[in-house]
Amino acid sequence: MSATASATAAPHVVIIGCGFGGLAAARGLAGAAARITLLDRANHHLFQPLLYQVATAGLSATEVAAPIRHILRRQRNLTVLMAEVAGIGPARRAVVLDDGAEIAYDYLIVASGATHSYFGNDAWARFAPGLKTLEDAFDIRRRVLTAFERAERESDAAARAAWLTFVVVGAGATGVELAGTLAEIARHTLPGEFRRIDTRGARVVLLEGTDRVLPSYPPELSRKARRQLERLGVEVRTGCLATGIDAAGVAIGAERIRARTVVWAAGVAASPLGRTLGAPLDRAGRVRVGPDLSVPGHPEIFVIGDLAAVESEGRPVPGIAPAAKQMGAHAARAVRSRIAGRAAPAFRYRDYGLLATIGRRAAVALIGGVRLSGYPAWLAWLFAHIYFLIGFRNRVVVLLEWAWSYWTFERHARIVIGGGGGPAG
Amino acid sequence: MSATASATAAPHVVIIGCGFGGLAAARGLAGAAARITLLDRANHHLFQPLLYQVATAGLSATEVAAPIRHILRRQRNLTVLMAEVAGIGPARRAVVLDDGAEIAYDYLIVASGATHSYFGNDAWARFAPGLKTLEDAFDIRRRVLTAFERAERESDAAARAAWLTFVVVGAGATGVELAGTLAEIARHTLPGEFRRIDTRGARVVLLEGTDRVLPSYPPELSRKARRQLERLGVEVRTGCLATGIDAAGVAIGAERIRARTVVWAAGVAASPLGRTLGAPLDRAGRVRVGPDLSVPGHPEIFVIGDLAAVESEGRPVPGIAPAAKQMGAHAARAVRSRIAGRAAPAFRYRDYGLLATIGRRAAVALIGGVRLSGYPAWLAWLFAHIYFLIGFRNRVVVLLEWAWSYWTFERHARIVIGGGGGPAG
Repeated sequence: MSATASATAAPHVVIIGCGFGGLAAARGLAGAAARITLLDRANHHLFQPLLYQVATAGLSATEVAAPIRHILRRQRNLTVLMAEVAGIGPARRAVVLDDGAEIAYDYLIVASGATHSYFGNDAWARFAPGLKTLEDAFDIRRRVLTAFERAERESDAAARAAWLTFVVVGAGATGVELAGTLAEIARHTLPGEFRRIDTRGARVVLLEGTDRVLPSYPPELSRKARRQLERLGVEVRTGCLATGIDAAGVAIGAERIRARTVVWAAGVAASPLGRTLGAPLDRAGRVRVGPDLSVPGHPEIFVIGDLAAVESEGRPVPGIAPAAKQMGAHAARAVRSRIAGRAAPAFRYRDYGLLATIGRRAAVALIGGVRLSGYPAWLAWLFAHIYFLIGFRNRVVVLLEWAWSYWTFERHARIVIGGGGGPAG
Repeated sequence: MSATASATAAPHVVIIGCGFGGLAAARGLAGAAARITLLDRANHHLFQPLLYQVATAGLSATEVAAPIRHILRRQRNLTVLMAEVAGIGPARRAVVLDDGAEIAYDYLIVASGATHSYFGNDAWARFAPGLKTLEDAFDIRRRVLTAFERAERESDAAARAAWLTFVVVGAGATGVELAGTLAEIARHTLPGEFRRIDTRGARVVLLEGTDRVLPSYPPELSRKARRQLERLGVEVRTGCLATGIDAAGVAIGAERIRARTVVWAAGVAASPLGRTLGAPLDRAGRVRVGPDLSVPGHPEIFVIGDLAAVESEGRPVPGIAPAAKQMGAHAARAVRSRIAGRAAPAFRYRDYGLLATIGRRAAVALIGGVRLSGYPAWLAWLFAHIYFLIGFRNRVVVLLEWAWSYWTFERHARIVIGGGGGPAG
């Protein structure tokens, strides 16, 4: 009887989203005197930093994703539900699911992340998919591989050139990784497999609105990244804003780039769930949380990861995986403190650095204040990513894949699945 | 000049479809004095016998598929085009593509295979997908994994039971493999990962219209297969014809099985391209070819694989992968003979046997007249399938996956991608 009573009395913690932040929060609550419910619209946790490899046919979906309930199967105080959250009712302390069902909570950790933003030009989305989910990655993979296939079938030279032109909009880490990898595919993976086209003639254009690639990196590393991209054959155009995107290509003011494949890596907007909290938001829609990551006026609600706007030591915490993980772990500690009747401590971000890869043996890194580029930065990137990949099994398989690709230039995941717009489209 | 002239004079061989038959034909023409064009609507060759493993989350798409142009990249006389064929004009010797373009041929090898048939009940297709393509496999995987997720969310007992009931219609090799694997997933892979449901209580029902499972096998092996299925927990119901399939489940006359997940493994219909040849067809829509596999009245057209109805030594050649491969190799030899001005020999099928797997250490096999079941049959199945998998790389990865799954019961590909019918559907 007392066991039942105490189980019922255990506070209910609901976590929305199982990205890096939500997963770290869930793990941080292992063994806590609480019942935990973890909600995610997908059945898998995604290792987002390698998603561009799925989009560019280097890795399979299963190598960068693992079922959430499998990862957390040993955590007996935790229930995983695959569900879309429609809204949050902070006043009545309940989360509303897509089917109208409500889940009451004592503590809530919102980790629903961010999505792409087209800066008000939502009509561009059809022509220039962004890269956030596995579905996005498959869509981009299909478009890229199909473009080469269509070029091989095309007899008109101008139409063929448009199929062989790839534009990446936005030169943050994802844009740089995509552009570098696309250039490598055209120059190293595909030559010799086509009979009518020379894939090495494909054009990869990287557009960036600011004056340098990787704008959040030190200027010296931006210069080095640009040089490495250009060595791979990428046309880097900084200070260039896309003013129009349609089926024919990209407009930059009066100029037009005819391209059948455009990828969007420019804008990020916080999850719309932030708005349902009634809390102050910043311009990107992120929730301005207090120093302990809780929502002002709602000490029982924590917002973490890309959805949170927070400063640490006077500087904004960046929207990257290590920051989300640290916030998740912090939110778990804060919930444990509150359950124990103590105040939650302030969040402090430990900055381990920045890492962006460009291609084979090409990367830039800022680690503990040390700037690396080229081969050493690439090795740092390689080991960091393999180390942090979820689950032992995936790590080994990914390492094998990479070793194979490195020596052969092959990309094993060059499989087109699904597709709209006609049987061969 | 003479080199150019002879290149122009080289006859043009068009192959439609790159399954086992088309791929064997393409390979058989390596080095031939011909130009070869290979058309397929997909960009990949699919190792169909393992597709059920993709549907049941044991393997990734990339482990059972490889890009066609990569497989054949060294065959310099061959061009691969990803294109859907809309029809064939035998009189003017041309293949018509989906975009209206025509490709003239001197010799044509039609290897466009088969698709599922719902015996005139096409409305069933939405509720009971078949398993022919990678898209089909992802659809079935999504339905199966989502069913367990929905059951975990469902509070009504009857609705939950419907989510936990899986019906496989048709007990040929594919149906037996699917049913056995689904039972294993429910009993061995998933328990311990759910908090509200016991997946071991899931019901897997295998319906078969004839009086035994694996009707094309010797009756003794059918009995053994049935016993192994029942040991895994599959409800085997022979002599049962589905008379209706909808969102609520399957009707068998007056009886209803409430099931949210139904898979169709019952009927096969030949590709509709057969009809555009103007040749005699059998009841399943297959083209009745001559002894050399050519179409009567059209010695320049060969039909092979599942689309061909042909006898060898007085017995019909079965619609299985080894037969398609042998026909492909034969068609290539026949084309070479014709080019050299000789008559093509008759096709003779070498029967190496039959193999069907049921689950871990459960299978039946008929090899050179010897009947095997259980562990020895399963070992034979394992080695045959690894041996015949396309491409060295895939073989090693699949072997590792299988070794891992064997010891851990894990299925690494449990990733839901895409999906219609609502965000969590």
